[in-house]
Amino acid sequence: MREPLQKLVESCGAVAGVIMGPEDVAESVSNGHTMDIDAIGTEFSFVLGQVRRAADILEIGALEEVTVSSEELTFLIRILNEDYFLGLAMSSDGNLGKGRYLMRMAQADLQAALD
Amino acid sequence: MREPLQKLVESCGAVAGVIMGPEDVAESVSNGHTMDIDAIGTEFSFVLGQVRRAADILEIGALEEVTVSSEELTFLIRILNEDYFLGLAMSSDGNLGKGRYLMRMAQADLQAALD
Repeated sequence: MREPLQKLVESCGAVAGVIMGPEDVAESVSNGHTMDIDAIGTEFSFVLGQVRRAADILEIGALEEVTVSSEELTFLIRILNEDYFLGLAMSSDGNLGKGRYLMRMAQADLQAALD
Repeated sequence: MREPLQKLVESCGAVAGVIMGPEDVAESVSNGHTMDIDAIGTEFSFVLGQVRRAADILEIGALEEVTVSSEELTFLIRILNEDYFLGLAMSSDGNLGKGRYLMRMAQADLQAALD
């Protein structure tokens, strides 16, 4: 999965990308940044558990995407399957629309690699 | 705050909108939908607490916006201040870009109403 992740990070100008598994980081790449993408993946893995729980309670169907924007960074998260998610860290001036689009495009390949 | 919230919901074709306070729903409007927007606000209030905690740990600056998309609905959340957030529920075919833009535009008015 490293190659499609690396390609994705470069194509959308993300500062880093991660594929999180059920208990740990499955793969991560950094685009020449000192950011601790593994720590970010781990934190958001926990958050995503809470979001899933809320989505279940509210009966709004399967979770597809979560975005968290702060002053400094935006995290785009795309659910790959029940256990794995794809996360991209983008700078505040990054192209989020392009990031979201390329994540959707990369989803099938990453899901196939996980099966 | 009801009037700007109502106007916002109608302008971006949202199915419902909510302003959540520190402990409860401060205001909510539904656009002719049976959705329990108060329950949604309460669930996402809890989730937002977890997201804030993660953002603090990761030192990525103040939280600005959170988006959660499921098969059926997308929730756009914009932080108004330390205690309040604005939430919009959009249908899956809704215009999220417009929703995000109009939320940013409405933010100053809503913050002024809270002060």
